[in-house]
Amino acid sequence: MNAPLSSHVMPAVSIRPVPSAMLQALQAQFGSRCSTAQAVREQHGRDESPFPVTPPEAVVFCESTDDVVAVVNLAQAHAVPIIPYGTGSSLEGHLLAVHGGVSVDVSRMTGIVRINAEDLTATVQAGVTREQLNLALRDQGLFFPIDPGANASLGGMSATRASGTNAVRYGTMRENVLGLTVVTPSGTVIKTGTRAKKSSAGYDLTRLFVGSEGTLGVITEVTLKLYPLPEAVSAAICHFPTVDAAVQTTIQIIQMGIPIARCELLDRHAVTAVNRHDKLNLRETPMLLMEFHGSEASVEEQAQWVQELAKEHGGEDFQWARSPEERSRLWTARHRAYFAAMQMKPGCRTVTTDTCVPISRLAECIGLAVAQADEAGLPYYIVGHVGDGNFHIAYLIDPQRPEERATAERLNSQLVSLALQLEGTCSGEHGIGLHKMGFLIDEAGEASIGLMRSIKHAIDPKNIMNPGKIFQW
Amino acid sequence: MNAPLSSHVMPAVSIRPVPSAMLQALQAQFGSRCSTAQAVREQHGRDESPFPVTPPEAVVFCESTDDVVAVVNLAQAHAVPIIPYGTGSSLEGHLLAVHGGVSVDVSRMTGIVRINAEDLTATVQAGVTREQLNLALRDQGLFFPIDPGANASLGGMSATRASGTNAVRYGTMRENVLGLTVVTPSGTVIKTGTRAKKSSAGYDLTRLFVGSEGTLGVITEVTLKLYPLPEAVSAAICHFPTVDAAVQTTIQIIQMGIPIARCELLDRHAVTAVNRHDKLNLRETPMLLMEFHGSEASVEEQAQWVQELAKEHGGEDFQWARSPEERSRLWTARHRAYFAAMQMKPGCRTVTTDTCVPISRLAECIGLAVAQADEAGLPYYIVGHVGDGNFHIAYLIDPQRPEERATAERLNSQLVSLALQLEGTCSGEHGIGLHKMGFLIDEAGEASIGLMRSIKHAIDPKNIMNPGKIFQW
Repeated sequence: MNAPLSSHVMPAVSIRPVPSAMLQALQAQFGSRCSTAQAVREQHGRDESPFPVTPPEAVVFCESTDDVVAVVNLAQAHAVPIIPYGTGSSLEGHLLAVHGGVSVDVSRMTGIVRINAEDLTATVQAGVTREQLNLALRDQGLFFPIDPGANASLGGMSATRASGTNAVRYGTMRENVLGLTVVTPSGTVIKTGTRAKKSSAGYDLTRLFVGSEGTLGVITEVTLKLYPLPEAVSAAICHFPTVDAAVQTTIQIIQMGIPIARCELLDRHAVTAVNRHDKLNLRETPMLLMEFHGSEASVEEQAQWVQELAKEHGGEDFQWARSPEERSRLWTARHRAYFAAMQMKPGCRTVTTDTCVPISRLAECIGLAVAQADEAGLPYYIVGHVGDGNFHIAYLIDPQRPEERATAERLNSQLVSLALQLEGTCSGEHGIGLHKMGFLIDEAGEASIGLMRSIKHAIDPKNIMNPGKIFQW
Repeated sequence: MNAPLSSHVMPAVSIRPVPSAMLQALQAQFGSRCSTAQAVREQHGRDESPFPVTPPEAVVFCESTDDVVAVVNLAQAHAVPIIPYGTGSSLEGHLLAVHGGVSVDVSRMTGIVRINAEDLTATVQAGVTREQLNLALRDQGLFFPIDPGANASLGGMSATRASGTNAVRYGTMRENVLGLTVVTPSGTVIKTGTRAKKSSAGYDLTRLFVGSEGTLGVITEVTLKLYPLPEAVSAAICHFPTVDAAVQTTIQIIQMGIPIARCELLDRHAVTAVNRHDKLNLRETPMLLMEFHGSEASVEEQAQWVQELAKEHGGEDFQWARSPEERSRLWTARHRAYFAAMQMKPGCRTVTTDTCVPISRLAECIGLAVAQADEAGLPYYIVGHVGDGNFHIAYLIDPQRPEERATAERLNSQLVSLALQLEGTCSGEHGIGLHKMGFLIDEAGEASIGLMRSIKHAIDPKNIMNPGKIFQW
C-alpha cells in the first residue's frame, strides 16, 4: 500500500454511435416506448454520483423480458452498448453512457410475478421497487428487509449488490437473491438458481450476476427470500458524547453476538441536517439509531443488553419508538439524511465514501476519516451501517469549484487506502461503477481484475453490456 | 420435465498421460512428497460415491500455496489434469481421475493462519478440518457452525459449497466464506474477498470459486465467518407416528420463523441403524433431532413453541439433552447414520439422493421418495436437513449386483425429476461431480451450462483443473 492509489477521475468518454438502422428498428418495434428526446436521454444519463450527465443516444422502455431480448439482439447485431436502468438511484456513475448506446429502462416492469408466502419467497420483475414489494407483502405477515434507503428497483439492487440498514441481521442482496432471470449478451434468456433455499448445483451464476453492475447481462426477474414480520419491533435512539463512543458500543454489540436488526450511526452534522429538514428535535450529538426484531421477550432482552453497553460508553437518553408511526418517522429522517444534508449547502453535490472494514478496526477507520475531514475544512456528514463495519462520509462540494471536488476525492482516496490496510473493502454496498475503478485495482489486484476481465470477455465478447464500468476492457 | 432425465452413468475414462518429464520434475522438487505408489494412488482415486476407483498417476502432498503453484505450473506446461484432494469425503465422484493426471493433496496444509476473535473471522489453510478449527476456537468462546457430518477439510467444503446440520440457521459455505486464496490454472495466486463482512467491489469471485469443485483453481486458504458460542444450547429429540408428521412440524417451524439451529429428520430405518451401531435405545419411529441456540430465555421460548407444534402433529416423547456430553452423543449418532446403515447390509455401497425443495413442497417430495423406495424393495434410510427442505435417501446396494445400482439410479432420477418440478434443486449440498452431470443439465438448462462452460474455457483454457466434473468440456 505504499504506491499511491490510482486516480479516480471520470474516464474519457468515447462514443460508439448507434447506427440509424438500429434506431429505426427500435422505433419500429417500440414506437413511443423508444425515446430520443433530450430530456429523457439526460434523465437516463445521470445518477446520484457527482459526474457530469452523459446521456445515451436513446432510451427504450421495456415492459417484458421479451422486450429486453429484442433490444439486446439489436445491440448485439450492431455492437452497440446498452445500459440497464431501474430508478436511477445508483451512486457511482453506473448509468452514465460513457460509450454511448441505448438505455434499457425496466422501470415499467413492475409485475409481482409470484409471492409464495408458505415458502418465504417472491419473484418480481426487475422494475419492482422494495417499497412496492413490501406493500404487496403487508397483508401476508411477511417483509423483504433489504433497505438501501432509496426506493430502488430490485433489479438494480441485485445488480449493485445493495444492502443498507437491515443488513447487519438479514444480510445483503448477496444472501437474499435466490435466483434471477437474465438476458445474456447473446440475447439468450437464462434462469439462475431455483426456489430451494440452498444448492450445490454448479457454478453460482446467481452470485456472479449479483453485483455485476449490468456488465454481464440484463436482469429482468428476481426471486427473493422473504421473512416473517417479527412478533415485536422496537426502535431506539441513544446519544453519545463522541463518534468513537458510539462506535465502541457498536463493536461490542456485534462481538457479543446480539442479533440487532439495525445499528446506524449519525454524526452530529447528520443529526443537525435531519433536525432542520424533518423538523425533529434530536440532541445534536453523535447518535445510534437502532432496531430490535424478535419475540417480545427477545426484543426486551436485546434492548437491555444494548442499554448496558451504551451506558458504559457514556450513552444517554435512550429513547424508544415502539409504535410503527414513531419508528417510521425516525427511519424516514435517517433515509433523508442525504437530501437533508444537501440543503445545508444549496446547489452542492456529494462525494460519498463507502468503505467497510472488519468490525474491530471500525473505530480507527472512522476516527481517521473524521480527523482528515475536519482538517480539510469541507462540510461533511457521516451516516453508517456501523454494525457491518460500513459507513459513509459524504463531503458536500460545490460543483462549480473543482478544487472542492479534488479535496473530496483526495480524502476519499486516503480513507480507502486506510480501509485496505485494515483488510477492508473500498465498497461496502454502492459498487464500483466509474468512480472506484482505480480503488478496485488497489483492492483486488491486477490478477483478480484479469480474472474478472476474462469472464467479461467470455460472456460479452463485443462489450455491449454497460461497457466501461467496474474495470477497463 | 416431460423429456426423460439424462443418464447418470459414469462418463468414459479417457486418460491424458503424465509425461515423464513432468513426473521427474515433480519427483525432483517434492522427493518423497510425490508418490506413485499404487496404494496411495488408489486412495486418492476414490471418494464416498459408488463409482469404481479411478486413480491418478501421481499424488503430490503439498504443504504451502507455493507448492501448489509449482504443481500447477508443471501441469499447465504439460497440459496435465490436476485434482485437488482434501480428506476424500466427497460424495459424487469429485476426486476420480477420469482424465488421469496428478492429485494435489492439501491435507498437510493444516496451518491456522489467523484467528481474529474480535472480528469473528479466521483464516486457515485448505487442509484444516472443521473439527480442527473448532478445537482451536474452543477457548475463545467462538465456533464455526458449518457441519456436513464428515470431518471434511475447509478447502473441500468450500469447493463443494457444503452445508449440513446447522445450515438452517447459519447458512452454508456460500454465506460463510469471506475470502479465498486460489491458485488459478495459470499458476497465479489470487486473493478474493477481504475480511470485511460485506462488499460490492466487483464480480463475486469468492462465490464463483465456492462450489466450483476444483474446476477453476486450487483453493489453498479460506477466510471464514465465526460466531460467538451461544449462551445456551439445548438439543431435543421428538418421535412422530409418520415421516409426514415430522415433516409437517418442520414446515411450520420454518414458516413461523423460529430460529432453530438444527432440525434433522431420521426415518425409522436410520433410527434402527444408529440404535444398533451406537448402542442407543431410541424408539424406532421417525424422529426429529433438533437444537436450539440463543440466550437462556430465547432457547426456552423456541423450545416451547416447537413442542406445541410437534404435539399438534402427534409428536411424543420430547427428550432433552442439555449437557454437552448428551448432545455430543446424539449428534455423533446422527453423523454416523451413514456408517451405521452400511452395517445393515455388509459389503454394500450407497447411492444417495440430495434434492432440496421449497419448504412447502417437502412433504410431497419426501412422501413420494418413501413410496417409491418401499415399492422398489431396496433397503434404504432417510436422513434430512429438513429445515432447509433438503434430505438424503440412501439406497443400500450390493456393488456386485448391477441391477441394484440401476434400480437405485432410477429412483434417484425419479426423485430429481420431481424435485425440479417442485422448483427445487438436484443438489442441496453434495455438488455435481460426475454423478449428477445429467441432472444439472435438466435443472439449469443448456444455456446456463453454456455460460458455465464459457467461464471454464476462459479461466482454464487447457482444461487442467479437475476436468470432466460438473459439465462436459
